[in-house]
Amino acid sequence: MNYEAIVLAAGRGKRMNAGMNKQFLELGGEPLIVRTLNVFERDERCTRIVLVVNPAERSRFEQLLARFRIQKVAALTDGGEERQHSVYNGLQALAGEEIVLIHDGARPFVRVHHLHELVNAAVQYGAAIPAVRVKDTIKKANGLFVEQTIDRSSLWAVQTPQAFRLSLIMEAHEAAKQAGYLGTDDASLVERIGKPVKIIEGDYRNIKLTTPEDLLFAEAILASRMAE
Amino acid sequence: MNYEAIVLAAGRGKRMNAGMNKQFLELGGEPLIVRTLNVFERDERCTRIVLVVNPAERSRFEQLLARFRIQKVAALTDGGEERQHSVYNGLQALAGEEIVLIHDGARPFVRVHHLHELVNAAVQYGAAIPAVRVKDTIKKANGLFVEQTIDRSSLWAVQTPQAFRLSLIMEAHEAAKQAGYLGTDDASLVERIGKPVKIIEGDYRNIKLTTPEDLLFAEAILASRMAE
Repeated sequence: MNYEAIVLAAGRGKRMNAGMNKQFLELGGEPLIVRTLNVFERDERCTRIVLVVNPAERSRFEQLLARFRIQKVAALTDGGEERQHSVYNGLQALAGEEIVLIHDGARPFVRVHHLHELVNAAVQYGAAIPAVRVKDTIKKANGLFVEQTIDRSSLWAVQTPQAFRLSLIMEAHEAAKQAGYLGTDDASLVERIGKPVKIIEGDYRNIKLTTPEDLLFAEAILASRMAE
Repeated sequence: MNYEAIVLAAGRGKRMNAGMNKQFLELGGEPLIVRTLNVFERDERCTRIVLVVNPAERSRFEQLLARFRIQKVAALTDGGEERQHSVYNGLQALAGEEIVLIHDGARPFVRVHHLHELVNAAVQYGAAIPAVRVKDTIKKANGLFVEQTIDRSSLWAVQTPQAFRLSLIMEAHEAAKQAGYLGTDDASLVERIGKPVKIIEGDYRNIKLTTPEDLLFAEAILASRMAE
C-alpha cells in the first residue's frame, strides 16, 4: 500500500537554543530536515511529501530541496499557530492516497521497515503509532511536589510517524477544529472521537531532537549507523 | 550537611543484553560502577558508601574497589529479590548520618552540585528526588491499543540519587515491608505514608544505562565531558 507523508518543519524549536530553526542544524554534514526527508524520498511506497514550513523560511527550504535533489516534496505548506494547525494545513495539501503518515521533521532516525509496519497497521486498524515502553519512573506533580507515582507498566512514550487512513484523520482533525480542541499529537484527536489507535513497538533510537543533549545523542546514533 | 550513600549494583540488567552484570561494562576504559562510585568518592560531604551487590559477584566487586582505590565503600551488602529489598538491606548497613542518598549504580553522570541540592532539600523537606520534565507524549495502553493520552504538563521522569532524612526513609521502608507493598522507587514508599517529596529539576544527561542504545548515549556524554 502506498502513502503520502506530511513532514512538520515549522516549529520554533526554542528548547534547542540553537539560535535558528533546528531543522537547519547539520548532522554529519547534512541538515537535519534533509536526513528526515530522505527516509521518505528513498521509500518507494511514499508517493508524495507535503512539507510544512514557516513562511519566512520557505525560500531557504526550497534551496535545500534543490541542492539535495529531493524530488518528492510536492507542496510546501504554511505552518499554523500550533502544531495541530500545521498538520491541518498539511492535510489540505494531500493528493488523496488512502494512507497518510504524519512525521516530525526533527526525527531523522526512523527506519523504512517501521514505516511499512505502520502503514500496514493503519490499513487494518485506521490509526497506528510507534511507541516505546517508558523506562523511567514517572510521577505526576503539583508544582514541585510529587502528587502520585504512575504505574509505568502500561505507559508508552509516543513517537512519529503516526499513520492514518486519510478519511479518519480528516474526520478527527475537523472534529477537533470545530470543538476548539488542541491535542498533543494527531492520534489524540482520533482517540477523542472514540476510534482505536494501534501501538507498534518502536525503536528507542527514533529520537526527536529537542534539547541540546539530543544533538549529542544524534551524533552517536549516526556514528553507530555508519558502522553497521 | 554530610550524608551516606547507598549504591545499588545487584541488578541483573537483562535489558542490556550484555551477557554479564552491566555494572562491569567498560565506559571510556573504566567499569560503569567505578565511574558511579567515584562521584561519591570525590564528594567530601559523602562520608561513607554502602554498596549493594549480588553475593555471587562480591569478590569481583572487592577486586574493583582495590584496583581503583575506592576508599569510602564501608560495607558490601547482599542484594535482595527485588530492588526494594536491596535498598532495605542497604539501609541496615548505614552508620547513622542524618541524610542518606540512594543511587542506581548504572547512573554514572550525576554531578556533585546536584548531590548537594538534593541533600539540602532533604534536610528541608524530608525527601527530595531529581527529575526531568517528560518530553514525549505519554499514552496509557490496554494491551497494544491506546487507552488515553496523559497530560504531560505535570509529568516528570524520575532519576536518582533520591535523598532522604534517615528516619523518614527507614519508617517508609518498614511500613512498606509490613504491608507487603512493592514500589518502583524509594520516594514512592514515602508518598505512600503521606509525606511530601520535593522535586529538584535534574539533568537529561543523568541517564540510567538500561538498554544497548544507552551505552551509545553514555559514550557520547562521556566524550562531551572530556571536551568541557
